[in-house]
Amino acid sequence: MALIVQKYGGSSVGDTDRIQNVARKVKTYRDRGDQVVVVVSAMRGVTDNLIGLAKAISPLPSEREMDMLLATGEQQTIALLAIALHALELQAVSLTGAQAGIVTDGVHTKAKIANITPKRIHELLDQGNVVIVAGFQGETMEGQITTLGRGGSDLTGIALAAALKADLCQIFTDVDGVYTADPRIVPTAQKLDEISYDEMLELASLGAKVMQSRSVEFAKKFGVVFEVRSSLNDNPGTIVKEETNKMEGVVVRGVSLDKNQAKVTLVRVPDKPGVAARIFKALGDAAVNVDMIVQNISHGGADGPGATDLSFTADKPDLAKARKVIDDLRREIGFGDVIATENIGKLSIVGVGMKGHTGVAGRMFEILANEGVNIEMISTSEIKISVVIDLARAEHAMKAVHAAFID
Amino acid sequence: MALIVQKYGGSSVGDTDRIQNVARKVKTYRDRGDQVVVVVSAMRGVTDNLIGLAKAISPLPSEREMDMLLATGEQQTIALLAIALHALELQAVSLTGAQAGIVTDGVHTKAKIANITPKRIHELLDQGNVVIVAGFQGETMEGQITTLGRGGSDLTGIALAAALKADLCQIFTDVDGVYTADPRIVPTAQKLDEISYDEMLELASLGAKVMQSRSVEFAKKFGVVFEVRSSLNDNPGTIVKEETNKMEGVVVRGVSLDKNQAKVTLVRVPDKPGVAARIFKALGDAAVNVDMIVQNISHGGADGPGATDLSFTADKPDLAKARKVIDDLRREIGFGDVIATENIGKLSIVGVGMKGHTGVAGRMFEILANEGVNIEMISTSEIKISVVIDLARAEHAMKAVHAAFID
Repeated sequence: MALIVQKYGGSSVGDTDRIQNVARKVKTYRDRGDQVVVVVSAMRGVTDNLIGLAKAISPLPSEREMDMLLATGEQQTIALLAIALHALELQAVSLTGAQAGIVTDGVHTKAKIANITPKRIHELLDQGNVVIVAGFQGETMEGQITTLGRGGSDLTGIALAAALKADLCQIFTDVDGVYTADPRIVPTAQKLDEISYDEMLELASLGAKVMQSRSVEFAKKFGVVFEVRSSLNDNPGTIVKEETNKMEGVVVRGVSLDKNQAKVTLVRVPDKPGVAARIFKALGDAAVNVDMIVQNISHGGADGPGATDLSFTADKPDLAKARKVIDDLRREIGFGDVIATENIGKLSIVGVGMKGHTGVAGRMFEILANEGVNIEMISTSEIKISVVIDLARAEHAMKAVHAAFID
Repeated sequence: MALIVQKYGGSSVGDTDRIQNVARKVKTYRDRGDQVVVVVSAMRGVTDNLIGLAKAISPLPSEREMDMLLATGEQQTIALLAIALHALELQAVSLTGAQAGIVTDGVHTKAKIANITPKRIHELLDQGNVVIVAGFQGETMEGQITTLGRGGSDLTGIALAAALKADLCQIFTDVDGVYTADPRIVPTAQKLDEISYDEMLELASLGAKVMQSRSVEFAKKFGVVFEVRSSLNDNPGTIVKEETNKMEGVVVRGVSLDKNQAKVTLVRVPDKPGVAARIFKALGDAAVNVDMIVQNISHGGADGPGATDLSFTADKPDLAKARKVIDDLRREIGFGDVIATENIGKLSIVGVGMKGHTGVAGRMFEILANEGVNIEMISTSEIKISVVIDLARAEHAMKAVHAAFID
């Protein structure tokens, strides 16, 4: 008999038919004799609808009241899933985040879990219940309802698995698992049987939409092994866990392509201390999400400070905001032209095996050169190499890199 | 500075425009320097929609889970109203029933309020907040979410007014107050400035849709004076309070007509002890809501037990159920024909002044006789006289009675 925590996202519980489908899936585990804790999100569309109502009243609604409002979405799903489980003659009890003992700090709309007291869950499990917990929400010590922000239901699932010392944590979603690349672009992409936390984190930050980084970080911190799998079939998914020696034998675990970035280049920026700091401080203050930054050596003049070209990438929707920040700094800093383009793609390869293998970057650049793809920017970490390339060639380049490293 | 409890029903908070309208109304009181506690219902349609989702999954959903589900409706409204008050630059904080200190028994879907600990409300009021409380809901001592059943939000308002020792309790609705008769039927109907609890109770039980009986009973028990008024204009409403000497000067406070009743007559029922008990026990077990019961004297035979005709009225939707119960009892009890009709109306006059006036019933019957209206059943209480008459003549009869006693 295992203790399993399962999390089902908004599309898995999108209507009453799907909720009944989840109930049948839970039943297959319960019938095996497992104890099951189910974490659910709001039904797809419910949260957006509630946000719409709030925004119709005020452009900047209070965060405390948004938590009060949005927490109702998950509360509806837990009750409906309990009803669906009862209809299958299973004992089941739903719990809000607060009732489940999930205590958070008081930072409304993006609260952090402070601790979990799973006493009530254990009691209900021991009485033979499936316990259904509202994802995405908790309560402060003072009894204020809080929500955990984007991806919060994944976090609830993983944190509960840690607190309950669950044998297994399953994140059910609408994809079969984690793939070596997006199968819509790379038809030969393969589902991974397993992936390390660090690889998963890099993929998450690179735009692979499977999970938010902080849920993976939480799992890594508390050593929660979890499986990403589909709620729509019975295929095994991808196990996410600490890296093993075996994993290091694979140089490239996955290839990702982020088409949602724009590039800005400032030409002839004075090469003086503090200039880069000034620029990126201003961008940060304006909430521009900057990703890659590249600055090359200075073309110094003999009779004065040199100048350098400075490039960075940011989320496409932030480009207009970024341009405004840069224009406002022009007089103060005194640089030349500003070149901005949305026609880029960020292509990345990820793998813990890179740590033990040399020449991976060189091989990637060679593949791209063979395809006639020009590299505009390069950024590397211990387990990742990213390049910025022309958007028009990006999918072609991705297939070539995938073919060379993985197929 | 007064402490006011205001309750707004589902149609008063039916959409974001109406919620903003409620916020403006609350602001006029707050601007006067009053402390305001606002109780709200779910937005019109929300509760029915949630019930629909539950019923799509199971015909008989668990009552605990229905409470978990339905409590979200009011929780959404309190958050949206708080956001609307903030937009008017008022301090406001929303509280669920549990957060407001409303403790109930554990009878899910129709819980009774056990006690209210309004400490948190007082603190928030003292800090300058409008306090918004979710109607219709509470929490058990064990932390289970409960709902109070139909009319529960009125009850929350009145119970909070009692617990807070409020100076004023206002029940905002979509009518201007309590009328001497339904103005849609009787154009000369007048809005009452005041009415006693007992009169209001009789009107409620007679089908006047303004409020559920138990909220009025609660107000009477705890001496909570409240006003029923419209959320759509600024007209004063009707004050509901303990009867005064002045009230007793008015013989008939109001006239009501209930067109939602059916009549069943059992012909030649054996006049033996226990027969009526058997019949109405069976109807009660089948959840048939019986209202009036009339049994006349026995037409006894010399050589055996006599027989009597027994009539009762019940809610129209219960008629088929009632007929089945009666048919099932036929062999056991042995009565003659069963005559059932939906073509009746129950016409009632209500007034605490009846207690001090004789001849009121006689006068009512005379008015009906003058109009050629036949009386099929009669039932009286200390402050009410009800007659069952032909549905086709009922509205005409109502106008005649209203004209004679009130106009």
